Amino acid sequence: MSGYPAIAERAERVAPFIVMDVMSQAAAIERRGGSVVHMEVGQPSAPTPRSIRTAVSHALEDGRIGYTQALGTDSLRARIARHYREAYGVAVAAERVVVTTGSSGGFILAFLACFQPGARVAITAPGYPAYRNILIALGLEPVAIEVGPETRFALTPELIERAHREKPLAGVLTMSPANPTGVVMRPEAIADVAACCRRLGLWYISDEIYHGLTYEAPATTALAADPDAIIVNSFSKYYCMTGWRVGWLVVPERLVRPIERLQQNFSISVPYLSQVAGEAAFDATEECEAIKAGYAANRAFLLAALPAIGLGDFLPVDGAFYIYLDIGRYSNDSMSFCRNALEGAGVAITPGLDFDEGRGGRTVRLSFAGSLAECEEAVSRLGTWLGRR
Amino acid sequence: MSGYPAIAERAERVAPFIVMDVMSQAAAIERRGGSVVHMEVGQPSAPTPRSIRTAVSHALEDGRIGYTQALGTDSLRARIARHYREAYGVAVAAERVVVTTGSSGGFILAFLACFQPGARVAITAPGYPAYRNILIALGLEPVAIEVGPETRFALTPELIERAHREKPLAGVLTMSPANPTGVVMRPEAIADVAACCRRLGLWYISDEIYHGLTYEAPATTALAADPDAIIVNSFSKYYCMTGWRVGWLVVPERLVRPIERLQQNFSISVPYLSQVAGEAAFDATEECEAIKAGYAANRAFLLAALPAIGLGDFLPVDGAFYIYLDIGRYSNDSMSFCRNALEGAGVAITPGLDFDEGRGGRTVRLSFAGSLAECEEAVSRLGTWLGRR
Repeated sequence: MSGYPAIAERAERVAPFIVMDVMSQAAAIERRGGSVVHMEVGQPSAPTPRSIRTAVSHALEDGRIGYTQALGTDSLRARIARHYREAYGVAVAAERVVVTTGSSGGFILAFLACFQPGARVAITAPGYPAYRNILIALGLEPVAIEVGPETRFALTPELIERAHREKPLAGVLTMSPANPTGVVMRPEAIADVAACCRRLGLWYISDEIYHGLTYEAPATTALAADPDAIIVNSFSKYYCMTGWRVGWLVVPERLVRPIERLQQNFSISVPYLSQVAGEAAFDATEECEAIKAGYAANRAFLLAALPAIGLGDFLPVDGAFYIYLDIGRYSNDSMSFCRNALEGAGVAITPGLDFDEGRGGRTVRLSFAGSLAECEEAVSRLGTWLGRR
Repeated sequence: MSGYPAIAERAERVAPFIVMDVMSQAAAIERRGGSVVHMEVGQPSAPTPRSIRTAVSHALEDGRIGYTQALGTDSLRARIARHYREAYGVAVAAERVVVTTGSSGGFILAFLACFQPGARVAITAPGYPAYRNILIALGLEPVAIEVGPETRFALTPELIERAHREKPLAGVLTMSPANPTGVVMRPEAIADVAACCRRLGLWYISDEIYHGLTYEAPATTALAADPDAIIVNSFSKYYCMTGWRVGWLVVPERLVRPIERLQQNFSISVPYLSQVAGEAAFDATEECEAIKAGYAANRAFLLAALPAIGLGDFLPVDGAFYIYLDIGRYSNDSMSFCRNALEGAGVAITPGLDFDEGRGGRTVRLSFAGSLAECEEAVSRLGTWLGRR
């Protein structure tokens, strides 16, 4: 044998994020002088709150920006534990908190710590595409369970048990508030899933990255239902800190040491300044709530305005900053629908195929993490465009 | 089945870093008022250069700290490419540069992109322990090839071919300057390994994280020998940026897209401020060279002073900031040797077992990334302690 070695199959198999292609296409339009309203990106358009940046600027002045303990600084872990007491009334020992490089880093650690090679992990379709892709790349098997409005886009014990009977699962992953559907699981829905996992001996991983961003009832942490649940969270969304790449896990005590060893090897530690920022974030509530009030206004506008232009087929979004629209009356090819919306209306939205390989041809996701003016402009452009079709 | 699900075997198998235990023990001594000279930690004691922090402080003021492209900002990728022209006279297209979350992030991406499950990857013993642990955790097989002074602690075509004949390898990983030995591979040694990999159809991954820190001849990049080599590097060491977690890969063009997809899913992107810091780092040469001059003074002192206290059994260190000592005349149990040195002499050093599971009982690693005064104090304490034994 000689010549070029082969690329690993897993790397060839990982799907790209389609939203990235939308973004490149939008950038191309803007480069040639066109105007695009961005409803495709899943990140806050607001800058990181001022008070967080001030705290970081002091740390930057100190200059000692070295490795921290693999599990995170003691003070950040303690601050996160305190957050569970204050926000949810749930007692969490600081020792069970693991600071991670974004929620992405948390998933990698949790998956590696919990699952044997080839293990089957239940996720929802529609759902966050990186779940599927990380699982596959790590040699695990995502089991995408189709959910719809009838279960409020959430897994239920029945759905989990059915998949488990087909071939045993090793874990279940839920997200609430959810990307792309914006649906918040009710406390009893989470408790049911947790109890089902406990009954079947499965790991239960709860992605709570959009906590804080709810518009009706607040979201429940799975820890309230089961202290053995694994919580994945991040500062990216509510705290407008996507570019800092810092998040956390809460894990059962017996997972702390294995995860510490994995983190020592996989990351050494999480970026120091981002940990400083995370600690300051919990005191930035006023700025964060003001930003959230902006999302709430956007949401209220869209919930009324979208149906008026013929885009009314969606579940009332209770959280996050997404609306997941059924566009089946216009198209069953969401890729070309989005391409045409971009070219024809100058509005960038994400095809549902990023979130649901099977049925995403008839759905699209709109993100309302920008300004109200942008939402208004998007609706006006889409309305005109749909009227012309 | 019911009750607690099991922890994955891979997570149970990952070895901890022994140096972490040394650090906890040292911290315990310091808490009870004792004094410890730290020669165990593999990171610069100098703060991140001022000019880098100033650049970051401007970005922090701007406030837009969001996701970047998965492969890194265009400007940082271009700046890294320019570095290859300027520092090595090697042409690298910016498109082949992948910004990573430290070299750790780079290894994960490279391993996932290059190696099929179960693939065998040759590494050296002694060597950086995370190689072995990451490979195992990802379901790959590290093949630790024992090297010694006779090959200047480097792999050779003979050693690689022998391991490949036993059972086919998929890749070879070398590090120069090396941790823990401080040895720099000569250009012809790198060219020989690269040619051998090419001949056998193996991926060649070259860890160049200690480039810039050489005290005799500069280190050669493997790209000079083979444009198909995969380079792993980081801003952590020469630029004193451990806590920023930012590094890079240079990869063959055909790996760029697969790695981009992996990074989209595994990290989304690298911390933004760290990328700003990385770009500024290339202009911080004056501060970095002054810090390096400090290491050079430490090194010169230790090369003369260690033999004088009976610790003379090491290869002249040409790079990095480590001395890898053979302590066989005192002990074949480096764990207790280090524990005793810490308790008896107040000097923290790392047992060789972190780097060489087979033979590390008779070696220890000293890091001289601190001040000359610390090096002097360490030698004085160790000399007295060894004299008392």
